[in-house]
Amino acid sequence: MSQEIKKIALLTGGGDCPGLNAVIRAVTRTAILQYGYEVIGYKFGYRGLYNNDFVPLTLESVSGIEHKGGTILYSSNKDNLFDYLVNEDGKMVKKDVSDVAVENMKKEGVDVLVVIGGDGTLTSARDFSRKGVNVIGVPKTIDNDLAATDVTFGFNTAISIATEALDRLHTTAESHHRVMLLEVMGRNAGWIALESGIAGSADVILLPEIPYDINKIVEKIEDRKKHGKPFSIIVVAEGAKSKDGEVVVAKIVEDSPDPIRLGGIGNKLAGDIEKIIKENEVRCTVLGHLQRGGTTSTFDRILSTRYGVAAADLIKEGKFGNMVCLKGDVISCETLENVIGANKNVNPDGELVTVARKIGISFGD
Amino acid sequence: MSQEIKKIALLTGGGDCPGLNAVIRAVTRTAILQYGYEVIGYKFGYRGLYNNDFVPLTLESVSGIEHKGGTILYSSNKDNLFDYLVNEDGKMVKKDVSDVAVENMKKEGVDVLVVIGGDGTLTSARDFSRKGVNVIGVPKTIDNDLAATDVTFGFNTAISIATEALDRLHTTAESHHRVMLLEVMGRNAGWIALESGIAGSADVILLPEIPYDINKIVEKIEDRKKHGKPFSIIVVAEGAKSKDGEVVVAKIVEDSPDPIRLGGIGNKLAGDIEKIIKENEVRCTVLGHLQRGGTTSTFDRILSTRYGVAAADLIKEGKFGNMVCLKGDVISCETLENVIGANKNVNPDGELVTVARKIGISFGD
Amino acid sequence: MSQEIKKIALLTGGGDCPGLNAVIRAVTRTAILQYGYEVIGYKFGYRGLYNNDFVPLTLESVSGIEHKGGTILYSSNKDNLFDYLVNEDGKMVKKDVSDVAVENMKKEGVDVLVVIGGDGTLTSARDFSRKGVNVIGVPKTIDNDLAATDVTFGFNTAISIATEALDRLHTTAESHHRVMLLEVMGRNAGWIALESGIAGSADVILLPEIPYDINKIVEKIEDRKKHGKPFSIIVVAEGAKSKDGEVVVAKIVEDSPDPIRLGGIGNKLAGDIEKIIKENEVRCTVLGHLQRGGTTSTFDRILSTRYGVAAADLIKEGKFGNMVCLKGDVISCETLENVIGANKNVNPDGELVTVARKIGISFGD
Amino acid sequence: MSQEIKKIALLTGGGDCPGLNAVIRAVTRTAILQYGYEVIGYKFGYRGLYNNDFVPLTLESVSGIEHKGGTILYSSNKDNLFDYLVNEDGKMVKKDVSDVAVENMKKEGVDVLVVIGGDGTLTSARDFSRKGVNVIGVPKTIDNDLAATDVTFGFNTAISIATEALDRLHTTAESHHRVMLLEVMGRNAGWIALESGIAGSADVILLPEIPYDINKIVEKIEDRKKHGKPFSIIVVAEGAKSKDGEVVVAKIVEDSPDPIRLGGIGNKLAGDIEKIIKENEVRCTVLGHLQRGGTTSTFDRILSTRYGVAAADLIKEGKFGNMVCLKGDVISCETLENVIGANKNVNPDGELVTVARKIGISFGD
Repeated sequence: MSQEIKKIALLTGGGDCPGLNAVIRAVTRTAILQYGYEVIGYKFGYRGLYNNDFVPLTLESVSGIEHKGGTILYSSNKDNLFDYLVNEDGKMVKKDVSDVAVENMKKEGVDVLVVIGGDGTLTSARDFSRKGVNVIGVPKTIDNDLAATDVTFGFNTAISIATEALDRLHTTAESHHRVMLLEVMGRNAGWIALESGIAGSADVILLPEIPYDINKIVEKIEDRKKHGKPFSIIVVAEGAKSKDGEVVVAKIVEDSPDPIRLGGIGNKLAGDIEKIIKENEVRCTVLGHLQRGGTTSTFDRILSTRYGVAAADLIKEGKFGNMVCLKGDVISCETLENVIGANKNVNPDGELVTVARKIGISFGD
Repeated sequence: MSQEIKKIALLTGGGDCPGLNAVIRAVTRTAILQYGYEVIGYKFGYRGLYNNDFVPLTLESVSGIEHKGGTILYSSNKDNLFDYLVNEDGKMVKKDVSDVAVENMKKEGVDVLVVIGGDGTLTSARDFSRKGVNVIGVPKTIDNDLAATDVTFGFNTAISIATEALDRLHTTAESHHRVMLLEVMGRNAGWIALESGIAGSADVILLPEIPYDINKIVEKIEDRKKHGKPFSIIVVAEGAKSKDGEVVVAKIVEDSPDPIRLGGIGNKLAGDIEKIIKENEVRCTVLGHLQRGGTTSTFDRILSTRYGVAAADLIKEGKFGNMVCLKGDVISCETLENVIGANKNVNPDGELVTVARKIGISFGD
Repeated sequence: MSQEIKKIALLTGGGDCPGLNAVIRAVTRTAILQYGYEVIGYKFGYRGLYNNDFVPLTLESVSGIEHKGGTILYSSNKDNLFDYLVNEDGKMVKKDVSDVAVENMKKEGVDVLVVIGGDGTLTSARDFSRKGVNVIGVPKTIDNDLAATDVTFGFNTAISIATEALDRLHTTAESHHRVMLLEVMGRNAGWIALESGIAGSADVILLPEIPYDINKIVEKIEDRKKHGKPFSIIVVAEGAKSKDGEVVVAKIVEDSPDPIRLGGIGNKLAGDIEKIIKENEVRCTVLGHLQRGGTTSTFDRILSTRYGVAAADLIKEGKFGNMVCLKGDVISCETLENVIGANKNVNPDGELVTVARKIGISFGD
Repeated sequence: MSQEIKKIALLTGGGDCPGLNAVIRAVTRTAILQYGYEVIGYKFGYRGLYNNDFVPLTLESVSGIEHKGGTILYSSNKDNLFDYLVNEDGKMVKKDVSDVAVENMKKEGVDVLVVIGGDGTLTSARDFSRKGVNVIGVPKTIDNDLAATDVTFGFNTAISIATEALDRLHTTAESHHRVMLLEVMGRNAGWIALESGIAGSADVILLPEIPYDINKIVEKIEDRKKHGKPFSIIVVAEGAKSKDGEVVVAKIVEDSPDPIRLGGIGNKLAGDIEKIIKENEVRCTVLGHLQRGGTTSTFDRILSTRYGVAAADLIKEGKFGNMVCLKGDVISCETLENVIGANKNVNPDGELVTVARKIGISFGD
């Protein structure tokens, strides 16, 4: 017997991503206008659920947020209520506090929880589903590395920003006959580097999925020089690794006299390449947080809105335990049980990599 | 027995569209780097084919064009060599001059003709194919109204520009409590209005596919006022029509004392709505040519590059008479015979219209 | 004896303009943080002053508005309390209701009125000053046509948008060998056309200050063709006029069967030029409201902030009856008595016009 | 007796800067169209002058470059022909080779040399002037730190890019309650940090001219938390220094096992602040080369064009040994003898810093 839905709650977890607000707006508007639900939003992801810290979401409060990056519900990166750090008798210990969350929802009369987040956040969503909570998932991954969905919001904005950065670096590279590197997001999956590299006319693209040999990179640079192009553009995913298996991540050296932050793979490679090619200066720019902020792209606003409406529809249909997704150009859904942990990496033999190779882009392999 | 390909030719026909140059670049690079073809480009579409007016396309000549709108090969809108206006004994008459074109290709040793264009341009491509010319088609329609392909390049750039325009109109609408209309492209298919309307938070979207009733539009405006929103944004496709079947197109009134240009449906509606609602000013902006120029969006650069590489691959595979297309996220092809004349309109009951309705957008119906 | 200031009020009048919100924010923050004033904002310009319709302005309410176009205080275009349309015994009559306004300020304890507006709005400000109200003016004119100040906010945003539009039109003009016109704001002063024309590489610039001869325009187009440039870009101020003194403004033809809006000078010229040159298509885009909305440019944010702080400083110094202005790179002030009605037109012999002519731009004269 | 000018040469030196191409275009067009000069451009700054490596500059070759960053003449950073590294008998030695340059100009019939560059490049220009060469200078400094001119091109583009970056960081900072730092250019002068900080609503601005105390920065962050703003934005010039006089510059550590690049002041500060405030994450983004590339802003295009025309006019007037400059809104000139070495730093008591302080921005002092 299906319970009647009266009130739903939203939360956003993990790193922020352009499109979150458009999802929040679309769920809220559809829920109120079409289905007459009351809507609230927990603040800071699961932490707000634990602390019963929420705001009402109304037509007014979600007005004018569609194009803004970030999330009006705030987010936290690491909170997992099934293994949560709490203060017990003055000591911080890890405990399963999910019952508190369930109790909070009951007290507030929340019938359904809509969780917008990445793999970690959705794992908790699945666990709440297993506990009997009515959960709907909405996938969020700026890296586009979720197997269950063809594309997620935020990715188009991210590659657009990275492409614009590559456009900018081109003018300086050409004027000074430099090699310019751009380090972009992508610890495990190189989608951002791959797509922005194709769009931004990179000469070399380095991905976690295709280990590079620095000599091959230099070869490409030298080959371009021979053909009258004494400058090169390299886009490198932060998780790119060499054939030797070396991975370089930006980090803080704590035991130095001053706490210093070392550059990541982009800066490392810039130094290494400059040592080999000598004649040309090599410079690296780390795009960092600029990739995830600001105005949401048109593509992402539409996709987020479709996801949001679909999430509200799933509630109406009682399809709990599911996550919305996009297959081809069709919005559908998958069970949370199936989607957790299923990542999508760049296929080194796939169409996009092949396209890039055919127009002459090197992957340093 | 398959003929060996040595030389290919490209041409672009119809209205310009962001992404054309990225297609030209990708075909040329793949043809030269992968398959060793020689490449030329006819200027001004079929007119250049008739006049044997062409330029060599080299790695150098297609360098740095990927992000630029327009077409380095130029384009003409109306030239059809099967029914071409020629000067014969001082009179302009229409003739089939396609044999001249075939002859020109033979003389230059052109083995394959790659035609990048819309329905009209591709109809001629099919006709050349029927004459035995090796033809490959690449679809171009900024309106996104070709049935054979899910998306075409240029469309994402166009809706991004239209969405940015809607963002701008919002601030003025709100500050002055105005009704602001934006007229966008879409004579027969309302895709640009629909998608930019969703992304740009329009309150009303008017499409050729969903005839409107002006009273319903006014109702929506008044309803918003009652809910504390004394301003509204309307996006209208140039081909939108009323339930009475009225269509208003911008035109020149030739027999007036001065040749004057009348505004189209957007300006017409602005006047009509203002007469009814009185209290608020109503203003219309016609986006016009701004939708098709400037920098190509990241999405369109990638799609164009994929199309271009696929076109070169079809040549290598000898699959003449085909057009490249995108199905879901997969690049494939269709025969030109099948694709001609098959348009794709907005489905009034489809997912996107439904999504828009669910978040409260009115279609004036 | 100088009265102690406790409470100040702001209002914005006339057409909206990027930078208004940054002024509001800077006045409010400086007034509260530096001088301990209470701040309110009248809504819809003088209308709110008459209706005693206002909102408190606090650090919180002006947070995050600096970059947004429009005005959070709303604006009205035509309200003049010294000649105001009121309902008297069922009839609408014009009356001087300025005493009501003064009374309202007294009741609320408003010590100073900060008026942000153009020539019309500031004329009323001067009149209130003459009545003994403590008034500070902040100039607002997107057309940049106020003599008392070198530059005003909004202008840089407007020319940036117009320049981007010209960039976009270039690709289409070149691809199709077209003549493209862009009609921009500037009824009396041609600054936007002049500066965007220089920045956007226009070939012809038409201003109210330099009457044009259509034959000279055609001459320039033909001359470019002879030099291998079979396309041209023309930017035309909406108030541009021919040597015959003809002025064409967009208007509604009320007595036609349907209320139709005629295009303005841009569309008129497009028709006229096309008739003469024949070979090339001529197209016009009217930029309209897109010039004044959206995100405020960096230049305008800084200038607005300087104006806002200066206005608060003038209050502290008791310099009532003054308007802030920019001379060279120095913020100063002028009395409202002096600035009213003093317009600044483009000098046909000035440096900017001369610069444009020297690089080959024609003014059609 | 004044020599008749027939041929002029241009060169660009130092780091690239948006607007260089617009200067090149304006000088070339004015020189050809108004004064009938022949124009050439030396490649790679003085290096091209030494190697007699040049290209003709024509109306055609400078067409369509106005909006592009970089320089079509290329640039080199360090070449000084009065102290130039040459190979003599297999050894690299420093020599004065300026006579070779003078000889090259004579051979080619170059009557005037237009030098576009920063302090270093213009110092050589002055030295050539002392040797009797007809030299005209055009100032280039993206940092805006030349005393002789109020503003130089490139600066407006740079602060616009930095402001857009700050806008983007805001959404993430707010969503995650983070402290976000943006490191911008400005080794000696903090103009970019100051102006982008005001425009981009920074909470703290750190400049070389105002030494900071980290405790004051933390105080500001904590103060904002108390007032309901648990996030902060800090913009830091790369040359910002602490009251202890500490300066941190990004550098390569050569003797480490791997050549690693240490982050600069921004990353250093992020680490230090995070250690103190604990509760909030602190993140730094280094804008780097993104500040100087891409499309030139409207403001900079106009200023560059004015400079270019003025340089050509100075040639016509025979005013050699001068540099063009902007005073207030007036283009004028100064002798190279006077301008060399005269830098312009941010005045800690000047209007802009005062404006920033009044709206509540902290300088960490």
